[in-house]
Amino acid sequence: MFIRMLVVNTNILLIKLLFCSSFSSQFDSKLHETSIDECMPCFVDLTKTLTTMRTNEISDAMERYAKTLIYNVPRGKKIRVRATVTAYKLLESAERLTPENLRLAHIIGWCIEMMNAAILIEDDIMDASLMRRGAPCWYLVEGIGMRALTDASLIENSVYDILKTHFSNQKCYIHLVELFRLVMYFTGLGQALDTLRPATKNGRCDLDFYSEDKYKNIVKYKTHYYTCEFPVRVALYLTGKLNHEEFKPHFDVLFEMSYFFQLQNDFLDCFGNSGITGKEGTDIQEGKCTWLIMTAVRRANASQRRALSENYGKRNTESVRIVRNLYEELMIPKTYFALEDNVSNLIYKRTREVSNALPDFLIYKMKDMMCKKVSNYTD
Amino acid sequence: MFIRMLVVNTNILLIKLLFCSSFSSQFDSKLHETSIDECMPCFVDLTKTLTTMRTNEISDAMERYAKTLIYNVPRGKKIRVRATVTAYKLLESAERLTPENLRLAHIIGWCIEMMNAAILIEDDIMDASLMRRGAPCWYLVEGIGMRALTDASLIENSVYDILKTHFSNQKCYIHLVELFRLVMYFTGLGQALDTLRPATKNGRCDLDFYSEDKYKNIVKYKTHYYTCEFPVRVALYLTGKLNHEEFKPHFDVLFEMSYFFQLQNDFLDCFGNSGITGKEGTDIQEGKCTWLIMTAVRRANASQRRALSENYGKRNTESVRIVRNLYEELMIPKTYFALEDNVSNLIYKRTREVSNALPDFLIYKMKDMMCKKVSNYTD
Repeated sequence: MFIRMLVVNTNILLIKLLFCSSFSSQFDSKLHETSIDECMPCFVDLTKTLTTMRTNEISDAMERYAKTLIYNVPRGKKIRVRATVTAYKLLESAERLTPENLRLAHIIGWCIEMMNAAILIEDDIMDASLMRRGAPCWYLVEGIGMRALTDASLIENSVYDILKTHFSNQKCYIHLVELFRLVMYFTGLGQALDTLRPATKNGRCDLDFYSEDKYKNIVKYKTHYYTCEFPVRVALYLTGKLNHEEFKPHFDVLFEMSYFFQLQNDFLDCFGNSGITGKEGTDIQEGKCTWLIMTAVRRANASQRRALSENYGKRNTESVRIVRNLYEELMIPKTYFALEDNVSNLIYKRTREVSNALPDFLIYKMKDMMCKKVSNYTD
Repeated sequence: MFIRMLVVNTNILLIKLLFCSSFSSQFDSKLHETSIDECMPCFVDLTKTLTTMRTNEISDAMERYAKTLIYNVPRGKKIRVRATVTAYKLLESAERLTPENLRLAHIIGWCIEMMNAAILIEDDIMDASLMRRGAPCWYLVEGIGMRALTDASLIENSVYDILKTHFSNQKCYIHLVELFRLVMYFTGLGQALDTLRPATKNGRCDLDFYSEDKYKNIVKYKTHYYTCEFPVRVALYLTGKLNHEEFKPHFDVLFEMSYFFQLQNDFLDCFGNSGITGKEGTDIQEGKCTWLIMTAVRRANASQRRALSENYGKRNTESVRIVRNLYEELMIPKTYFALEDNVSNLIYKRTREVSNALPDFLIYKMKDMMCKKVSNYTD
């Protein structure tokens, strides 16, 4: 009886999810587009399958797991599942674009979203964040707390259950498993880099720590592999391409995009309107190596540098305000907006310079999905 | 220069580790025994390889990773690596027990220890524990904090790098990868079960929550798969046995052992001498479903039940004292010690009853490693 109730409850949650207004974006009829609406039914199926297994013995853990998935996975812009499916549509030959193959692309796109959700749950704990996608971070939800760690681990590990169920009879199976592992490993290294802090002396932090090299490595490990390369590589595997050597120049262009994507995130963390971005920034307080501090350090004169060094990485409101004012004094926002205007052209130019191994259109689509207009998120 | 210094530093740490007194247990010459001394050189090699890769670009993250591995992986009793190697020695044919194959068994045994370390880092955060293996929990070490989460993820994910490096040319490779994944998934489910709490009403907890069924599921998912089945299955894969159907009855006997192993842990959490066990118990405060509360609930009369329900799962010292006194009143320690005396005989008996698919000796060896004499750890 209890198990039936659970199944019914999960179903209600899932039905609500499928039809609630926040997911009803406009349907896009173009073949290569992948709307949020197109992606949702597959998520609903996956959640149902994952959380009704083993319910005979551990129904309470499964009920909790259903709530975890629904709260953490399908909110947000779903860039990764949409990028995966779009990339697959653009890379696959017309005759192999069957409903069954498209379904597999959706499934694996959701696997990437699940990995993302697991990473964000832990990230929010590490950064002591309050909001994520307009709602309290999972660890702050009543009754969750540090148990969120188990939830993140469950999400991450059940991805491999999904891969086994749907891909173990395919040639790309072990490649997919290894790619997921490697990307998670690299992302972990990126997070390790991201959480390293400079030495402090007499309450001042050593600003030499914040260099372009360090920033590029953070982008490469923390952001690039799993946001940009991952969906494209996965789509290539699905089309049967197991060796990706020839795509190296395209991945380099994608790296430029990742760099810009991270830079946007850094900018919004400081200057975004939290009512629109859905989260409160903490980078200054946390002393993170962001594009803003890295650029500010390069530009600051002696007195500005001293002020930065005295206030960066401190949790009090006054220090945060001082750093933010210094950013404005150093024209960081102006530089950012000039960059935003130029980046599209740069990416178009770089894309035309590389071979035709990947369709240009795919890179442009990735850009559309990843590079938002930041002025829409600021005051 | 810095990279060379890092390598030298890591080397010094590793050399210290190899020869420091806590690891110099007596060498055991019997073939089937696997001493701690026998295991350490392989760990030193693995750590060196893992943390000198990619040092050209992310030397600071790698230096930190070396410290993480050394602090978290090789302390403790190393039951899992020793069990893996012992199982392999007992299961493999004499002519295939080459130094190279034994090395592979050590490597994979350390992979299990690494998984264990990753789980314990997160466990300690979830349980708000203070000590682990006689030292502060990793997240309490200065400069670590919640960054421990990244460290746990790195340890877990680099295991798959090791598997790829050493096993990708073997028939059992994908089986090993899938087993590691599945065990981590099950362990996550076990932790989810372990962190569920009963409903409370007017500050009293619903004791019906603590049942034998719930306890068995926690043992099965949280403890059994990864402590008992895991080393044996891995050893079977190494010998080339990819199908484990015939060993089901043996795994059932191993489940009895896991049950007892968990019961011992529960007992020591409450009645162990923290100076000897190396950690302070928190199960009563956390309201965990342990063998003690499950047994106490079954035995308590109405007034004892009321006292349990009012005090279990509370963080104040007085409540913990009341629960512990009730355990004594309900003769839980006496029951425990009687069980301890009987369990060896029961396991011997059950082992003789099952087929000879696994050597009896292997199960006895597992028992030797897992079932400690609790009186050595109590006051």
